[in-house]
Amino acid sequence: MDNTVTIALDAMGGDFGPSVVIPGAARFLKSHQNLHFLIYGDEAQINIYLNKYPDLAVASKVIHTDKYVENHDKPSSALRKSKGTSMRMAIEAVNTGDAGAVVSAGNTGALMAMAKLILRPLEGIHRPAIASIIPAPEGDTIMMDMGANLLVEAENLVQFALLGSLFAKAHKGASIDKPTVGILNIGSEDSKGPDHVKGAAEILSTITFPGTYTGYVEGNDILNGPADVIVTDGYAGNIALKTMEGTAKSVGRMLKNALKSDPLAMLGSLLAFFAFSRFKKKADPRLYNGGVFLGLNGLCVKSHGGTDQIGFASAIKLAYQLANAGYIDQVRFEIEKLMEQESLID
Amino acid sequence: MDNTVTIALDAMGGDFGPSVVIPGAARFLKSHQNLHFLIYGDEAQINIYLNKYPDLAVASKVIHTDKYVENHDKPSSALRKSKGTSMRMAIEAVNTGDAGAVVSAGNTGALMAMAKLILRPLEGIHRPAIASIIPAPEGDTIMMDMGANLLVEAENLVQFALLGSLFAKAHKGASIDKPTVGILNIGSEDSKGPDHVKGAAEILSTITFPGTYTGYVEGNDILNGPADVIVTDGYAGNIALKTMEGTAKSVGRMLKNALKSDPLAMLGSLLAFFAFSRFKKKADPRLYNGGVFLGLNGLCVKSHGGTDQIGFASAIKLAYQLANAGYIDQVRFEIEKLMEQESLID
Repeated sequence: MDNTVTIALDAMGGDFGPSVVIPGAARFLKSHQNLHFLIYGDEAQINIYLNKYPDLAVASKVIHTDKYVENHDKPSSALRKSKGTSMRMAIEAVNTGDAGAVVSAGNTGALMAMAKLILRPLEGIHRPAIASIIPAPEGDTIMMDMGANLLVEAENLVQFALLGSLFAKAHKGASIDKPTVGILNIGSEDSKGPDHVKGAAEILSTITFPGTYTGYVEGNDILNGPADVIVTDGYAGNIALKTMEGTAKSVGRMLKNALKSDPLAMLGSLLAFFAFSRFKKKADPRLYNGGVFLGLNGLCVKSHGGTDQIGFASAIKLAYQLANAGYIDQVRFEIEKLMEQESLID
Repeated sequence: MDNTVTIALDAMGGDFGPSVVIPGAARFLKSHQNLHFLIYGDEAQINIYLNKYPDLAVASKVIHTDKYVENHDKPSSALRKSKGTSMRMAIEAVNTGDAGAVVSAGNTGALMAMAKLILRPLEGIHRPAIASIIPAPEGDTIMMDMGANLLVEAENLVQFALLGSLFAKAHKGASIDKPTVGILNIGSEDSKGPDHVKGAAEILSTITFPGTYTGYVEGNDILNGPADVIVTDGYAGNIALKTMEGTAKSVGRMLKNALKSDPLAMLGSLLAFFAFSRFKKKADPRLYNGGVFLGLNGLCVKSHGGTDQIGFASAIKLAYQLANAGYIDQVRFEIEKLMEQESLID
């Protein structure tokens, strides 16, 4: 059973529970045979959907629980009453080694708190962080932190560069040896930016790590694919990510309204239907679904709560790529090398 | 000569100097008769353009200087050799009271440094800041700080709320009494965000100021017009602003490429030509050109260096609105009231 990856699924998370989780898993399984699932949640509800996908049923084991984390629960309260919930059991499967990664569309705060508590940060990692995939014309960019932390120190950004570089290698496969890494900042000159940013730039310019530091990235450049990895603190990262989402939606809505307001334009948009569809497909947020918690003793991917099966399959894909690449062991190895260099710097 | 506003123009700033500054001024003058200009720069070059606009020539006085600030100069170096430059002379005209505001498309860093040095911050204002206009379907939003400062304290954000509210009133005119004010943050719950953000939210919820505090604004909501004013530190503000610009451009480019790739879609876009034009016009960044330095003893507007006459006219408009509203006196009055309340809080 070499090379088989087992993924634990919290079937009860998200707005739609098993009705999205199960078809999403079936969808991803089609293209990946060396895959097992441990599915946690209400067995009766799960089976309604699992029965429709015999291949998935064969590759899966359902572990019943009727407890689950509510979407609106506060993280602290969810954590207190988490024992035996589908979310917690799925995370525990990673901790015991039964699964190589966990995917949940449930309550973000609860998932983060639980993953941190159960999986614990990797030795040497001070701030686990959330990474997201940003689409760019010439290939995806990994961006982190997207909001697990607020403002951080220079050393944390350096660790994000390491975590992100190894993620980029796992995500892009053989096509990339030393991913390029930029830091999000308010200007391109060395003298610009807050202390934690300037400090990280200085360290990344001197050390050896699994990526190549290429300088600052400004907000207007994020979507041009300026680097394989963009690191930032969770405050700026969350604001930049949400601003991208909001702006793309706004522009789309304005365009739609402009086209609707004019019969000739409406006819024109009919003719352009297939081009519009291709455009929409390329920018489809479901294909970039999945926030990955990096820096823990185990892999945990948060799917968007409102996504459909295509989006959930994308989140599973990220979990699979990282587990399949042996990401955690790579980080353990590289973080030790980084700490040796840092002790030399100090 | 009541109600006449005099605006000082640095004719030599920006990528195109007088060839954009003069037509821009002429353009704005068409709709505003009670307006004078003091135009600083190379008289011969200025007159080439000024001769084409007799109305502007009558409303203007040209003050010759052959010194100007280079676009690529570092602020410190530009400042050292600034005496007698068109930029500095234009700012000095505001300081002496000869002009109510200055507009320059020149070197941003130099302009900021010079304006701060010559005009000095208003009493009680600790951090002057840059405000920009963000377009939203139901009306403009004022956002600040866009990068004059990096990370700031809660008290600074509170002052930005005051400065931005008075700007919103000057910008939107009689249609608005107490502008709504939000703070950019990574979530909508009170408990979310860095200390300076949470601190500002607490203060703004208790004090009286010329706006109404309405809560946190997330990145995806900026373009939905969530408030008349959005305050943030210059780090997050600059990143959000540039991310909006970059995303809008990216989406537009992707759409163009999708339409170009398909003959039927190209025919369709011809039919939609007028709708596309209206769409472009609505989102035209030139109409939102102008970064306004607020919190100084004088008004200073930075135009984008690469803009055309339409964009430069927009920057003049902001200067005019603020000067015409007596913005500086309003801030002096309101900041005193704010300081009284803060002394009560402390």
